Amino acid sequence: MALNPRLLQPRSVAVVGASDDTGKMRGKILRCLKDAGFRGAIYPVNPGGHETIQGLKAYAGLQALPEVPDLLLVGIPGAGVPAVLEEAAALGCGGAVVFSSDVVAADMERALAAARARGMSVLGPNTEGFYLPKAGLAATFAHVVEECTAHPPPPRKSLRPVAVVSQSGGIGFSLFGRGVAAHLDLHSVVTTGNEGDLEVLDFIEHLVDGGEAGVILLFIEGLKDARRFAAVAAKAAAKQVPIVVMKVGRSEAGQRAAVSHTAHLAGADAAYDAVFERHGVLRVFDAEEMLAAAAALSLFPFMQDGRTAVVTTSGGAGGWAADLLSAQGLTLPALSPQLQQELLQHMPAYGSPGNPVDTTVAVMEHKGKGMLGVIAALARSGEVDAVLVNMGLGTKGRVAGMAPELKPLLESSALPVLFHSHITPSAENLGALADIGTHGFPSFRACAAALDALRRYGQFQQRRAQASDAVTRTVQPSPLLRPGRLQPGVLGEADTRGLLAHYKVPVPPSTLAQNAEDALTAARDMGFPVVLKIQSPDIAHKTEAGGVELHVQADSLKEAHARLMGNVKRHAPTARIEGVQVQKMMPPGHELVVGLVNDVDFGPLVMLGFGGIYVEVLKDVVFAPPPIGRAEALRMIDSLKASAILKGARGRPEADLEALADFLGAVAQLAADGDGVIDQADFNPVLVYPKGQGVVAVDALVSVGAGAKEGQHV
Amino acid sequence: MALNPRLLQPRSVAVVGASDDTGKMRGKILRCLKDAGFRGAIYPVNPGGHETIQGLKAYAGLQALPEVPDLLLVGIPGAGVPAVLEEAAALGCGGAVVFSSDVVAADMERALAAARARGMSVLGPNTEGFYLPKAGLAATFAHVVEECTAHPPPPRKSLRPVAVVSQSGGIGFSLFGRGVAAHLDLHSVVTTGNEGDLEVLDFIEHLVDGGEAGVILLFIEGLKDARRFAAVAAKAAAKQVPIVVMKVGRSEAGQRAAVSHTAHLAGADAAYDAVFERHGVLRVFDAEEMLAAAAALSLFPFMQDGRTAVVTTSGGAGGWAADLLSAQGLTLPALSPQLQQELLQHMPAYGSPGNPVDTTVAVMEHKGKGMLGVIAALARSGEVDAVLVNMGLGTKGRVAGMAPELKPLLESSALPVLFHSHITPSAENLGALADIGTHGFPSFRACAAALDALRRYGQFQQRRAQASDAVTRTVQPSPLLRPGRLQPGVLGEADTRGLLAHYKVPVPPSTLAQNAEDALTAARDMGFPVVLKIQSPDIAHKTEAGGVELHVQADSLKEAHARLMGNVKRHAPTARIEGVQVQKMMPPGHELVVGLVNDVDFGPLVMLGFGGIYVEVLKDVVFAPPPIGRAEALRMIDSLKASAILKGARGRPEADLEALADFLGAVAQLAADGDGVIDQADFNPVLVYPKGQGVVAVDALVSVGAGAKEGQHV
Repeated sequence: MALNPRLLQPRSVAVVGASDDTGKMRGKILRCLKDAGFRGAIYPVNPGGHETIQGLKAYAGLQALPEVPDLLLVGIPGAGVPAVLEEAAALGCGGAVVFSSDVVAADMERALAAARARGMSVLGPNTEGFYLPKAGLAATFAHVVEECTAHPPPPRKSLRPVAVVSQSGGIGFSLFGRGVAAHLDLHSVVTTGNEGDLEVLDFIEHLVDGGEAGVILLFIEGLKDARRFAAVAAKAAAKQVPIVVMKVGRSEAGQRAAVSHTAHLAGADAAYDAVFERHGVLRVFDAEEMLAAAAALSLFPFMQDGRTAVVTTSGGAGGWAADLLSAQGLTLPALSPQLQQELLQHMPAYGSPGNPVDTTVAVMEHKGKGMLGVIAALARSGEVDAVLVNMGLGTKGRVAGMAPELKPLLESSALPVLFHSHITPSAENLGALADIGTHGFPSFRACAAALDALRRYGQFQQRRAQASDAVTRTVQPSPLLRPGRLQPGVLGEADTRGLLAHYKVPVPPSTLAQNAEDALTAARDMGFPVVLKIQSPDIAHKTEAGGVELHVQADSLKEAHARLMGNVKRHAPTARIEGVQVQKMMPPGHELVVGLVNDVDFGPLVMLGFGGIYVEVLKDVVFAPPPIGRAEALRMIDSLKASAILKGARGRPEADLEALADFLGAVAQLAADGDGVIDQADFNPVLVYPKGQGVVAVDALVSVGAGAKEGQHV
Repeated sequence: MALNPRLLQPRSVAVVGASDDTGKMRGKILRCLKDAGFRGAIYPVNPGGHETIQGLKAYAGLQALPEVPDLLLVGIPGAGVPAVLEEAAALGCGGAVVFSSDVVAADMERALAAARARGMSVLGPNTEGFYLPKAGLAATFAHVVEECTAHPPPPRKSLRPVAVVSQSGGIGFSLFGRGVAAHLDLHSVVTTGNEGDLEVLDFIEHLVDGGEAGVILLFIEGLKDARRFAAVAAKAAAKQVPIVVMKVGRSEAGQRAAVSHTAHLAGADAAYDAVFERHGVLRVFDAEEMLAAAAALSLFPFMQDGRTAVVTTSGGAGGWAADLLSAQGLTLPALSPQLQQELLQHMPAYGSPGNPVDTTVAVMEHKGKGMLGVIAALARSGEVDAVLVNMGLGTKGRVAGMAPELKPLLESSALPVLFHSHITPSAENLGALADIGTHGFPSFRACAAALDALRRYGQFQQRRAQASDAVTRTVQPSPLLRPGRLQPGVLGEADTRGLLAHYKVPVPPSTLAQNAEDALTAARDMGFPVVLKIQSPDIAHKTEAGGVELHVQADSLKEAHARLMGNVKRHAPTARIEGVQVQKMMPPGHELVVGLVNDVDFGPLVMLGFGGIYVEVLKDVVFAPPPIGRAEALRMIDSLKASAILKGARGRPEADLEALADFLGAVAQLAADGDGVIDQADFNPVLVYPKGQGVVAVDALVSVGAGAKEGQHV
């Protein structure tokens, strides 16, 4: 159901079970709410007969309140929660946050049904709640609220404020707290716990619609409604709001943890990767990467390319930065002789103006005048897309001393200029960098993650803007895919052929011949050698019936035909014979495998991999959801580890990548139209020939599911 | 030359160019020396006619000093450095540190020759010097000395104190500073700069010999004397002193940086990897990994396996830890039902006793009593090799409150127990963990690096102890490899055969036949099909001379022999014919490639990879230095990405891994004996047959270098 806006914008809040004891969760909730600066009415509710709680007038029950509160905060033991929710729903509350982690699931379901019926949104159970610092609204017991109210972080301005959305309360508030410490411009943190009602997607959608959050940090174990993800992510993409996601469950133990924690099934990781990739959602694997990406996406323009200049006062640090940036796929181009000449004017002769630019520490004299000159020259050079500055940030006042000149320089630069210190940086210098609108990253790995995020998201938006990948439907859905038209199980040859022909999936030339003479004519037309196969609705296992002849040449066709018919007559004397399929035997090509799988979370996905031992041992496969346009298909092919093999490695001819791309597009169309009908399809092998000579699916196996709900983990 | 011990243990130090201006390097050097607590005599030397400098009696020159100083610190402009060194050497100083970065190389060489002649050791030029905090000796201008003297870190005790050795001054002192902040038990930091005389290996050897440093952190761009590395690393291994290395130059830009910085050639990265792997040197790629490995190796016993229990008060953090640990190859075994039952006694029923063990935050009540119970149960369970505890370390006094019970628990545990906080930890809690002998790691990635280091080093020492890989020489060096015996260039067939036969490198059966009748007999003995090849010292290109016949069967041998002889007679009528080689055509098998390369830094290395397109496109190759015992060879095979192919993937028979291992051992013996003679050898393809059926090198090409110094980058 939709998120009731009163949950996040309440004018009044009741704290059910409020306590004077701020060592307890229920006492902390009230204190956080009070301290964070909420400007509406706060009602402590406790049946214990208190006059006041934490200095506020207390009430014995919801009925006793002077008004129906917009928001309810519920931290009482689980057994009492359902009744409270039902009562609140009946009263007409807007929303409730259920912190309790010991609510019986069945009872909770009943209460949620009552809430839904009255349009009351429920966050939780087992949530740590949310915190909107700019609105002064804390619906949580998280320690970070105390810190932020005791030592309010200076207000920050950025291109894009950062919001945290997390299923895990611990991680959500941890990311928020680390973000505060890293001087990020933070909009909010919401943690959704067990997602009995509201889920992370509700909040992402709300944040994107509201337009206040410019970057969303997402921590999930799995999605409650994976199929809805695409629509929400597309909305974020349209508003240029990057989503950075950390998803648990890549490992078996990680999946075990997710299931035992909040009963989220940590869905098939490869399917999540495919969907993230499609929608420009940036996956990261640890908090440092996530915060680095957040800082960069919040502060800097997106990048179209990854050419980076590294400037360093320590030569050793330059090489180290170069290695870590290169490992992330960023490039450090050699600088032009003219630019090197210009850089040398700002540094001693024993420095090195290459890239990394080793300025030596001498450039830090005179309030960093030399360093400022180097940064300015690089920023306007047009030779790089970003500048990474490494210098010691331990010395007091270092950044403050440069700020009067550095700030306008950064403001006038069209490029991201990132900072790093190989020496442990002082908090003062990091704060001073934030004050002038840039960021001191904690490691070179973080710098690499930051630049990678800017580039990946910039390239994603570029693809979107060019609409190079618009997919136009070329065929209408096949009538075969209408509900109930196909029987569950492996599809027969005629239906398979019909389906593939409809979607223009290339298969070897094939003709049904009624006699040996017709077979010979057909074979001559398609070229030898050919395969002969008996066609009969009564013969399931053709080979065992002697009904297949391979490697048939012109001079042996009639003989083979006679042998085949004789075999079949002996083996299945009563079978109805429709004729003999004559199929061209295809010459060898690159062997690939294309599949259609029905992921239990996301539905149909198209799989591409190298055939045979490659796919089995090296797991060189990639997935993508339909639709798949040519550009998307080419990117899929590109992302195979061994893709160089198709591009003419070792002097071989380049493969017909366009034909393979179109093949993937056709299978994607079949996948989309067959959603809920087709359970699985395998095209193995798909032979890929040299450029201009096409591809062909030598074998195809399509299987129909028993119902639309069926599915499997990728 | 050997390190003069007076350099690191001076009784008197002269600071040449000492200044009152502590804003300048020369002023800082004197101040650091004074402040760090040096107990010997300090002599400021400055020709400027000062009475005192920084309160100490000043001297106009070295000659004016009351004694010959053990150590000289030289930070004057480069032009004056050589004369000072020559004078100091003549006086009989023990050592000098040259901080200056602008010394002319040729002049420096002359001065170093003078120093060498008198046994004076020189560190630098372009070094940031060294700091031995326990001895109170600072021969540097690094800022970290000021910090350590202003706020002395509490003394730490550990199993193994940590020493930092770095070519880069900036990085060396940065690592040291970060180590101080991370509460490590630090022994020393030495930075070697341009290594005109002393190099990192001198200091590693000194530290290992001295027995005071238990872990060495090494930062290098390349080694001055790579061939010496093995001996030094072996010494460290024998004393169980782990070396953790960060080496710049994996990327092209990183190599560029290294060359421009200190003129170190950042040697072939694959060769370094091979040598590091052989000697148990743990390579890491950033400071966080290095410091995490340092903390773990300093504090905890080594591990033989990587089974880890993750204990967490935040469920979300548990899955995240599991993913990052698994990505590093550590395992999180499911715990036994008995152990789970035991764990449940210490946590609420809504926690999860699986692995990750999600205790919920309730276990932190009553001074963490529940958490202590969980840790104790896991530590004595025998089901894991390490315990990683994640809990919030933001709250003041959290660790201190647990310490009275936690400290004895950790001391009695035979396992590493690591700590992490998903919430930003307070400095107080991290310090309190250090006080009780453990460590709070800054990220799960750092925890994974720490455990990985303990396991990798433990397994390395286990292999050493078992001596399972002792290599015994089975053949004496071939006389062919005696100096001058072979001509430079590609080796002829007879010498190649001789060499391979000597080292028992398996090649296809082959016989020199004088006529068709003999050829037929020989072919019958070895089995058809065979290859016939003309053998003549005058025919280099056999195929072009029509001197090769492939796929020869019994019924066509005489005809093929006659055709071959006819071709050759026409093509090279005057060639001396020695006969016709009859060689068995080998059946297909797994195609591998084995090579012998002569690395410019380390000398001979053996290369193993998959053949054909695998090796070219996927770069699935591995290198190792000789000697190679069977266990080492099997580890090489194991480390190929596609090694599963050899182990019976997809129901195929397992390959003859033992035979392949012995093949590698034989090539390694050839490589060792041929050091300085053989420049390169290729065995391509090496066919590997099913278990028990052996391997064979179908083609072998050996090339001899022009001189022992020749080599190439791997």
